[in-house]
Amino acid sequence: MSPGKIIALSGGVGGAKLVLGLSHVLPDDRLMVVTNTGDDFDHFGLRICPDTDTVIYTLADLADKTKGWGRADESWTFMKTTRSLGGEDWFNLGDGDLALHVMRTQALARGQSLSDVTASVSKAWNIGVQIVPMCDQAVATTVKTETGSLAFQHYFVRDQCQPVVTGFDFEGIDQATANPIALDALGQGPDAIILTPSNPYVSIDPILKTPGMRPAIEASDAPVIAVSPIVGGAAIKGPAAKMMSELGVPATVLEVAKHYSGLVDAMVIDEIDGHLASAIQDLGMEVSVVPTVMTGLEDKIALAKDVLALVRRLKSAGPS
Amino acid sequence: MSPGKIIALSGGVGGAKLVLGLSHVLPDDRLMVVTNTGDDFDHFGLRICPDTDTVIYTLADLADKTKGWGRADESWTFMKTTRSLGGEDWFNLGDGDLALHVMRTQALARGQSLSDVTASVSKAWNIGVQIVPMCDQAVATTVKTETGSLAFQHYFVRDQCQPVVTGFDFEGIDQATANPIALDALGQGPDAIILTPSNPYVSIDPILKTPGMRPAIEASDAPVIAVSPIVGGAAIKGPAAKMMSELGVPATVLEVAKHYSGLVDAMVIDEIDGHLASAIQDLGMEVSVVPTVMTGLEDKIALAKDVLALVRRLKSAGPS
Repeated sequence: MSPGKIIALSGGVGGAKLVLGLSHVLPDDRLMVVTNTGDDFDHFGLRICPDTDTVIYTLADLADKTKGWGRADESWTFMKTTRSLGGEDWFNLGDGDLALHVMRTQALARGQSLSDVTASVSKAWNIGVQIVPMCDQAVATTVKTETGSLAFQHYFVRDQCQPVVTGFDFEGIDQATANPIALDALGQGPDAIILTPSNPYVSIDPILKTPGMRPAIEASDAPVIAVSPIVGGAAIKGPAAKMMSELGVPATVLEVAKHYSGLVDAMVIDEIDGHLASAIQDLGMEVSVVPTVMTGLEDKIALAKDVLALVRRLKSAGPS
Repeated sequence: MSPGKIIALSGGVGGAKLVLGLSHVLPDDRLMVVTNTGDDFDHFGLRICPDTDTVIYTLADLADKTKGWGRADESWTFMKTTRSLGGEDWFNLGDGDLALHVMRTQALARGQSLSDVTASVSKAWNIGVQIVPMCDQAVATTVKTETGSLAFQHYFVRDQCQPVVTGFDFEGIDQATANPIALDALGQGPDAIILTPSNPYVSIDPILKTPGMRPAIEASDAPVIAVSPIVGGAAIKGPAAKMMSELGVPATVLEVAKHYSGLVDAMVIDEIDGHLASAIQDLGMEVSVVPTVMTGLEDKIALAKDVLALVRRLKSAGPS
């Protein structure tokens, strides 16, 4: 039997790190990344897709490795000039980054789909791994807070995740359809579906809630593996742990497992959380306890290999 | 009698130089610049107004003084990245320049007029002189050539003025209306109307041909003075001399005077063209022979003073 695809669901930075590791271990045609588009928004009249772009920049080796977002070798003259014009400056857009948003906005205006645009960009920047937005329709994640609802980027960037979260909405998701490219891959007998260590509430959930996506994952025989974004009670990056606390849920890998319960066959958790393995197993999940903190490329490749080892173990044990 | 306004009609670089000189000699509220918008075009989904922007950058002291276009201290990361995406790169857009186009495109999309946007930008950058686009409707200069019609920026930038010119069209001009701000100023008894040393065919003519503009100039008692963009048979910058030759007209100040004949009361010509003064006078025009080549700021101020001296001379001689 020829090997199937590994389909990774990804948000921004955390997910992109594991995806980069996987891309070093798998041939291009065995890896597909389905990206969250709930963070996408219009700013300065341009369509900006932060999670998809982080995956693109990471796989094209164009990402700024220290900042964790945007492009390396970036300049900031546009923002400086925008500020001198009294324009909005809460969302930092690099000059090179802007080229991607301008190109995408024009292509969408010409009637191209977000999938088409993403494929064109990948081709231009020699990305062999297929990057697939969760859907081609606009979905807007809204963060419900004690002081009112906020568009995701207002919560995340402008207000720096300060407001206390009470829930989430994904506006437009009922009118969206899971990307047919992703559905087709899910129907072709993939080897595994990986929920990367991105935020469960605002990165992975929007993908899973896109109509058609979760049923297609459930219909597949492939094992579904989640890599915990929570390590030792904290999020490696972003507001996941803070959100969990504010939602009245302890910020632990056990709670991440509970959140994914019913869909996920196995959890990959960090060694520091090893003591919670048996509680997760009690939920009916397999557990792999490995180092999950990805600092350098070696860490990313090592975690990718650990995840693929788990895939082999689960597959040899038979269909889930 | 309180002094009236000096109303300068301007294209890009040449006009902006004289306008800068005038701005150093006149109080802000005595100078109005009416800019050519026939060069305006949409590129990358953004509204770009080259002549108006050159006047803005010049008066805000933001212009690149060596290149003759764009901003000083500019960066080019957007273009570099656009090129890496396979995007169009024939029109160089600096990263800071882009901020102006993005801001303007958004404001126009919100329903603001080009006049309003220009006023906002002037305010943000502390430009006291009033800059007024010739009209708020879109007019597109088309250059007719032996090999077909070209949008102005395609002729001017992409094809570097190589095609042989046979004529000009100003698309949309019949549906345009001269800017009411300019018409109001023309009706208020200005001191003079100056045709700056910009290209007569593609910078000054579109302004004059905007419905309502020329009748308002003709109805005014103020002297109309043209500063020749042709010096010694050549254009200081741009294709004016080349266009004249291709149109079968000798590239001389005499021909510029003939072109403006019936509207202009006086020509300001360079010393090198002094031998043509009497021929111009034979057309019924006054002539002022002075140094007109503006290299440094001192030259611009000197020419502005010479022009204003001519204004005083013409006014003391009585209404034209």
